Amino acid sequence: MPGNTFGQLFRLTSFGESHGAAIGGVVDGCPAGLLLDIAAVQAELDRRRPGSTPLGTTRNEADRVEFLSGLFEGKTLGIPIAFLIRNSDAKSSDYDALKDVYRPGHADLTWEQKYGLRDHRGGGRSSARTTAACVVGGAIARQLLAREGVKVSGYVSRVGDVAMEHVPAQLDRVWKSDVRCPDPETAARMTKLIELVRSEGDSVGGVVSCVVHGPPAGLGEPVFDKLDADLAKAMLSINASKGFQIGSGFKSAEMRGSQNNDLFYGAMVPDPRTPSAPPTSYAVLSQTNHAGGTLGGISTGENLLFDVAFKPPATIAQAQQTVDRSGKAVTLEAKGRHDPCVVPRAVPIVEAMACLILADHLLRQRSARL
Amino acid sequence: MPGNTFGQLFRLTSFGESHGAAIGGVVDGCPAGLLLDIAAVQAELDRRRPGSTPLGTTRNEADRVEFLSGLFEGKTLGIPIAFLIRNSDAKSSDYDALKDVYRPGHADLTWEQKYGLRDHRGGGRSSARTTAACVVGGAIARQLLAREGVKVSGYVSRVGDVAMEHVPAQLDRVWKSDVRCPDPETAARMTKLIELVRSEGDSVGGVVSCVVHGPPAGLGEPVFDKLDADLAKAMLSINASKGFQIGSGFKSAEMRGSQNNDLFYGAMVPDPRTPSAPPTSYAVLSQTNHAGGTLGGISTGENLLFDVAFKPPATIAQAQQTVDRSGKAVTLEAKGRHDPCVVPRAVPIVEAMACLILADHLLRQRSARL
Amino acid sequence: MPGNTFGQLFRLTSFGESHGAAIGGVVDGCPAGLLLDIAAVQAELDRRRPGSTPLGTTRNEADRVEFLSGLFEGKTLGIPIAFLIRNSDAKSSDYDALKDVYRPGHADLTWEQKYGLRDHRGGGRSSARTTAACVVGGAIARQLLAREGVKVSGYVSRVGDVAMEHVPAQLDRVWKSDVRCPDPETAARMTKLIELVRSEGDSVGGVVSCVVHGPPAGLGEPVFDKLDADLAKAMLSINASKGFQIGSGFKSAEMRGSQNNDLFYGAMVPDPRTPSAPPTSYAVLSQTNHAGGTLGGISTGENLLFDVAFKPPATIAQAQQTVDRSGKAVTLEAKGRHDPCVVPRAVPIVEAMACLILADHLLRQRSARL
Amino acid sequence: MPGNTFGQLFRLTSFGESHGAAIGGVVDGCPAGLLLDIAAVQAELDRRRPGSTPLGTTRNEADRVEFLSGLFEGKTLGIPIAFLIRNSDAKSSDYDALKDVYRPGHADLTWEQKYGLRDHRGGGRSSARTTAACVVGGAIARQLLAREGVKVSGYVSRVGDVAMEHVPAQLDRVWKSDVRCPDPETAARMTKLIELVRSEGDSVGGVVSCVVHGPPAGLGEPVFDKLDADLAKAMLSINASKGFQIGSGFKSAEMRGSQNNDLFYGAMVPDPRTPSAPPTSYAVLSQTNHAGGTLGGISTGENLLFDVAFKPPATIAQAQQTVDRSGKAVTLEAKGRHDPCVVPRAVPIVEAMACLILADHLLRQRSARL
Repeated sequence: MPGNTFGQLFRLTSFGESHGAAIGGVVDGCPAGLLLDIAAVQAELDRRRPGSTPLGTTRNEADRVEFLSGLFEGKTLGIPIAFLIRNSDAKSSDYDALKDVYRPGHADLTWEQKYGLRDHRGGGRSSARTTAACVVGGAIARQLLAREGVKVSGYVSRVGDVAMEHVPAQLDRVWKSDVRCPDPETAARMTKLIELVRSEGDSVGGVVSCVVHGPPAGLGEPVFDKLDADLAKAMLSINASKGFQIGSGFKSAEMRGSQNNDLFYGAMVPDPRTPSAPPTSYAVLSQTNHAGGTLGGISTGENLLFDVAFKPPATIAQAQQTVDRSGKAVTLEAKGRHDPCVVPRAVPIVEAMACLILADHLLRQRSARL
Repeated sequence: MPGNTFGQLFRLTSFGESHGAAIGGVVDGCPAGLLLDIAAVQAELDRRRPGSTPLGTTRNEADRVEFLSGLFEGKTLGIPIAFLIRNSDAKSSDYDALKDVYRPGHADLTWEQKYGLRDHRGGGRSSARTTAACVVGGAIARQLLAREGVKVSGYVSRVGDVAMEHVPAQLDRVWKSDVRCPDPETAARMTKLIELVRSEGDSVGGVVSCVVHGPPAGLGEPVFDKLDADLAKAMLSINASKGFQIGSGFKSAEMRGSQNNDLFYGAMVPDPRTPSAPPTSYAVLSQTNHAGGTLGGISTGENLLFDVAFKPPATIAQAQQTVDRSGKAVTLEAKGRHDPCVVPRAVPIVEAMACLILADHLLRQRSARL
Repeated sequence: MPGNTFGQLFRLTSFGESHGAAIGGVVDGCPAGLLLDIAAVQAELDRRRPGSTPLGTTRNEADRVEFLSGLFEGKTLGIPIAFLIRNSDAKSSDYDALKDVYRPGHADLTWEQKYGLRDHRGGGRSSARTTAACVVGGAIARQLLAREGVKVSGYVSRVGDVAMEHVPAQLDRVWKSDVRCPDPETAARMTKLIELVRSEGDSVGGVVSCVVHGPPAGLGEPVFDKLDADLAKAMLSINASKGFQIGSGFKSAEMRGSQNNDLFYGAMVPDPRTPSAPPTSYAVLSQTNHAGGTLGGISTGENLLFDVAFKPPATIAQAQQTVDRSGKAVTLEAKGRHDPCVVPRAVPIVEAMACLILADHLLRQRSARL
Repeated sequence: MPGNTFGQLFRLTSFGESHGAAIGGVVDGCPAGLLLDIAAVQAELDRRRPGSTPLGTTRNEADRVEFLSGLFEGKTLGIPIAFLIRNSDAKSSDYDALKDVYRPGHADLTWEQKYGLRDHRGGGRSSARTTAACVVGGAIARQLLAREGVKVSGYVSRVGDVAMEHVPAQLDRVWKSDVRCPDPETAARMTKLIELVRSEGDSVGGVVSCVVHGPPAGLGEPVFDKLDADLAKAMLSINASKGFQIGSGFKSAEMRGSQNNDLFYGAMVPDPRTPSAPPTSYAVLSQTNHAGGTLGGISTGENLLFDVAFKPPATIAQAQQTVDRSGKAVTLEAKGRHDPCVVPRAVPIVEAMACLILADHLLRQRSARL
């Protein structure tokens, strides 16, 4: 079964290669009647594109999304929303030298092992460029979530050994920071590290963290499509990601139950969509959120908190040993413009994948009860 | 869409609650002609059952699997293999006191938020007892994988602050250790910690690591059903798991590209199924395996290496604050027999979920090329 | 991808062979909170079982359904409802002579072509006995549909050359007729024909027609999961079925547009669930229903009308030429008790499959709009 | 779950509306390494387009397919093949009068019942124009099937009361006939009828029959994804289709078992791909093919034979009664150019849907055995 469709009820089918005619996708299952803000979709895409931050590659692409179907008088029709982003006139010939070489840390080798042939230009479909389709799909999902008072906010919490331990209060600062870290002091240290690494012809890894404010309780399907299991899959689908944790995550492996359990208390709460009105409904809450917003794979209604680890980009300006298709040893030295660290540009992708999962589970939840 | 079916071509549909008549499942898509070793399936189930290790709960259950369909003269017919495990005569009345109370760290609250009602006895379907169906399904998958020379081996690499950093050489020692750790010295320290925690009426978290020897190259579907994405989902589907990482995982976020890239070299290699015969085929190999056996989400043919974080069990013998359905504050103090640490009993489950994913991708790969 | 799971949101996974330990299934996706009438499920199963009509096989089986999971205090929990029907102690040795022979009109040959091996006893999984699982699944679906005022009624409209052209008014008479035809005069002629055919050692085909009263408008997904497309698939999934038509069906191929179009008019209508109350809502209706209740694959709210053609049973008491596995010509003459005509016993199966489709689309429709 | 994706392993996701920017689709799961003949794909699309036969609408559209992804140096890469067909500058304003009116026999009403809103221009997504995406997908599937010696041939076997009872010998004549009927005498009578009907401002129904030569034995999944069940669904997915039958179909309902059973004999047969070489393998064959090429839902290796009934087009030039959205009675009289009979243009669509199903099952069969 091919692996280019994501989600069950709200689903994205993605297509395209780095140097083909276009990349794009089809969102199927978006309910009818949503007034889609196209400019907001484009704005999210702009956050991902090369050149969106000075800390990424210096290549600059326009990445204009064109919608082909599924909208009428500005509203979703309940049918497939197809879109495409034309690839600009990339210099594919730049990649001729890589045609028969397997770059370390890239998918050149495995692609060929799997399919017997590959489009070597710019990594073909294994390129992170394919995530642009996820960002568009996620941007549509986000508009559906916004109606329910759900807000998805990612940020860079680690670059190499520079880390931010706590969930930041001021997530609106994220997009004012080139490195997408809301704490100015940490952001400055991250920036300095990325610039150092770039000057050394090297690259560095990092972590993107994500907070989902206002998720409805009850999302997630036992036993296999748990909300955290689906989030984990979504995050490991992103290029260069190597790990996922929710709540205390790997730290919980070091903890005692008496520390890690989030104790419940009851309280009257305001409606998240009309927060200034007096509280009208009763909720079970916790003072702590070690769980990260799910219990038994189902959302509690507390904020969702999770982290995604990204490896350092495989392409570096230093000489590396590898082999070519004939088995001959080759020394490879990357030229040109590459990201020394992916996490700043990964933030919108993490958010997009989370939005896709949440929109899907929001619809799935509609069938849980009579 | 309901979430009780796992896998695409090799798929397990799971059913059952802790105190219902039975738990079980249906494996669909196992190719015809496999001579199934039923005793081996039962042996794997025995490794998971309560009472299998003195470090777990002292409750003792038989857990005999009965096969209902899909086999003829010992062989798989290519059709659904249904099986069930009767629940022994559990004392459901023990749980009457919990009927209206939300236990901290358990799914009582979320289950009710999702469905509006729940079977409170023993956690109902949110009980880890449901993983027995995964173990049976995984044991069938494992026999399919064995024919391809693939071997899946889990072990406990961390309990609380006692950890084993390196992949152990002697994985066959795992099952000789009550704590399922192959290093005797580390195992002793882990055991001591679990016994301490138990004496304190507390619980402790841990990590299960897993090595897959001999995976074929080319497994995993771009872009959304990457092998590591599917493994992540599988692992986060296990009760109490909170994180997943592959290869260097979260450590790679702290690394430089020049450290983390696995450089390639070419070599003649023997067939894994006839390792004593002279090498006949050429392979691209690496000296290091920071990637953990995948590139671009597709297996390289190197060993797969991944880790799963488990939180400390939520049920502890200490008093905890919570609320009941009416909003009244309640003090809860668990009685009876519980696991102070889940990781020893989680090892066969991690292995089973990995087997399910690998068998599925083995079949999916059959359609990748002409 | 294995083919033993049916439906998307309301889904049945079926298992079992004619002479294995049991047949059964898992219904996943039934919403939580449905008070399930188990006796009604058993009653539907009784209508299908061998011996339910004197016009079928004289074999007599109990077919008691046992529920294994998914119910608590009589209500559905929103999780898998597993059930099984033990196979009584069938005389499998009766089939020894057929082990190496391909019976004409049966799946012996194709099963072996597909899988390389087969369970020859009683047809194995190709036996119509497997439809018992569909009947149980359909009976659960029917209880969900009943809450929405939907009623599914099948009847025999043709046996050989004895046919009933019009949709009968009194469908409640169906189960008083051994041949499951509500028109007494036609039923008598059908019965006579079946008895004649039986006395000749032959078999005869027939048609089951079905009326769905009160379907909600809007069911069916464009463009591939149209309601009629899904019904067609459901019906062709039944053993021995060879054709499906909706509304005027094949007759519409002979008609003009001016005859076949159902003209619309507007009217105030009562709620189907409170038919005695004064009409409160406006509906678009038609005087005719050539379409059979769908337009563009989506239900109009008019009754659904469709027909399913069944071939004469392949097993007859006359000598037939065939071959065995070694290629040797063999003369086959069936002994024992067989159905001379399947349609009376197919009625509950047609209804069950229709219920499964409708329940699935009822849930799918929940996601069509904001 | 949205209904715009078709197939499991070889799958088409379709998008687009009649008067949107474009229609198109994404084929996912086509194995890597297929040298795709683009001109042949375009040629199949040309057979479907308006203006392809003088018996259809006199509207003339270019319908050029553009491939966006999935191909490299002429070969499939194993990844999504996206394509689009731009809608030419259709005069959408022609449809303004229909904005608030429900045309009899069309999906205007049901679309609105389902989604609450619709794109009324040219029928929106309920337009038969969407089948162009199926034709492109089917054309890719056909090239995969051709490698296995499988050939799919449709033809018109009925227009109104003019019918051809037997499977024609000379299927290559189909495309020489405007009405797509290979028998010249019958074709002439069909043509005359269509012209008569057109002159009367009316429309007429018909039947498309299809022969699949050389299908491999063993295709089809028991028990729910039978080959004939999947074909039935595929055919009922086509606009205006109202019925499906395989082999003797509805006629078998009138037959005796002794007539309908296809008796087996054994014979040495040549390989279909090298038909001139001496026979080398043993096959079980039949003199008759009442079954239409499947037994128990699995292909026998005999030709597949099936029929699809189409209703007369709903749009006619005669005055018809209907209502508008406000409930007011309206008299509707179609202007402009419409097909008086859909079957000539439905032939390539029937073939395309059959190709999609067969390619899917060809890949699914790869996992049936060890």
